[in-house]
Amino acid sequence: MEKEKLYVIKIGGSLIDNEENLSKFLAVFAEIKSKKILVHGGGKLATEMAKNLNIPQELNNGRRITSKETLDIVTMVYAGKINKNIVVKLQNFHCNAMGFSGADGNLIKAEKREISDIDYGFVGDVEAKSINFQLLESLLDLNLVPVFSAITHDQKGQLFNTNADSIASVLAQALSQNYNVELLYCFDRNGVLENPEDSASVIKTLNIEKYEELKASQKLTEGILPKLKNAFLAKENQVAKVFLMNESNLQNHINQENDGTEIKI
Amino acid sequence: MEKEKLYVIKIGGSLIDNEENLSKFLAVFAEIKSKKILVHGGGKLATEMAKNLNIPQELNNGRRITSKETLDIVTMVYAGKINKNIVVKLQNFHCNAMGFSGADGNLIKAEKREISDIDYGFVGDVEAKSINFQLLESLLDLNLVPVFSAITHDQKGQLFNTNADSIASVLAQALSQNYNVELLYCFDRNGVLENPEDSASVIKTLNIEKYEELKASQKLTEGILPKLKNAFLAKENQVAKVFLMNESNLQNHINQENDGTEIKI
Repeated sequence: MEKEKLYVIKIGGSLIDNEENLSKFLAVFAEIKSKKILVHGGGKLATEMAKNLNIPQELNNGRRITSKETLDIVTMVYAGKINKNIVVKLQNFHCNAMGFSGADGNLIKAEKREISDIDYGFVGDVEAKSINFQLLESLLDLNLVPVFSAITHDQKGQLFNTNADSIASVLAQALSQNYNVELLYCFDRNGVLENPEDSASVIKTLNIEKYEELKASQKLTEGILPKLKNAFLAKENQVAKVFLMNESNLQNHINQENDGTEIKI
Repeated sequence: MEKEKLYVIKIGGSLIDNEENLSKFLAVFAEIKSKKILVHGGGKLATEMAKNLNIPQELNNGRRITSKETLDIVTMVYAGKINKNIVVKLQNFHCNAMGFSGADGNLIKAEKREISDIDYGFVGDVEAKSINFQLLESLLDLNLVPVFSAITHDQKGQLFNTNADSIASVLAQALSQNYNVELLYCFDRNGVLENPEDSASVIKTLNIEKYEELKASQKLTEGILPKLKNAFLAKENQVAKVFLMNESNLQNHINQENDGTEIKI
């Protein structure tokens, strides 16, 4: 029997920080006929909030550390303001969205990132087996549209800040067991570019060899690397289709499935 | 056929502001064998946050007005920090809690409070028909334990700040159709007191006549009036049992059902 189609769609700061574009995107997302899950990152709001509350943002070798105070802020901003703002907009478009952190229904259980050279603080890492996919499938069967913020937990009473690209990837992996999953990383570029200066130089299909080649020639910008790492991980773990694409092209992509960079292995 | 037992339990600021007492309470709540729903208020945190962010709290004749900025804060604090803090603690006690605002799954649809002498701003009022009880029952059938923050929406894209006592009452009313509901208003007193100065003067059973008598003799403190109004509303609308009781006596109450003040009509 053919598996049912399911989209896992990740959006990030460029969209979340722009109310008008976010609304446009959500109007298109709401109209997708297949089953679907939205995963959102954070945007600038948490950083602004930390600044306004005079909570210092600790960095270690350029990497952000999630202190207890910062965890409180991201929980408020990601799981509270941004998540409910997205849910209420989708409800307005008659899409029965339900917002979650990973703690809700124990949907995503993470492990605290191990301390090696850096202690990242309250940061949790996830893998496909982190996902309570049975419950998630029951929720999808109720025609709910899950909207995930990037907050997880350890089922021992601790919340974690978690990378939203990773969450999207492991959700797609876990759900591929019973669904024909298409994972879309939506961001503010047209895909992976052959030439970072030329937005028309979209690579239609990116395989591991080409990826290593681009990485070696330093043609990949900092922000795209976690997406690509998670995109390849998804492909290696049975996710049917994976794309990196422009958030403003969602409608085209859904209609024609030919927009952005497709990841292949 | 006898209806299945369901507890709707409301907790407020006195518990939410005390991490240790909150944990103790949630440990007892997690052990309740029947189906159950938790509704939580806000506590001092939202006021502190508004102060720290220099967002003026508008009052009109002593009533708080929910401005756009205040709505953002209560959404972050109630639906984000407090809600996820409760959910993660319950998960630690192996209670499969799932946190909601009324926008999630369109579970609670409110109407903006009408402007009469005062415009309360983004405040929504609820009634029994506001509750999407079919979906809520499906979630209970998945053995989930709903945890509601007092944020609702109008399904037209607007979130609202809503009274948590009212939410508990209308949830209890809506679910009484198919469940044998017991509604517990937990707070920091032993129940309704004959003499506000004497914590042992708990009135075991309060009916409308007695209530009117206490109100007339000004023996009811400000904070207890909305609870009583909502408690009587619940009784008038088929809720099997309604109590006002001390949050530290939950275990006793569940075991013996004789703690606090029972509301009768």
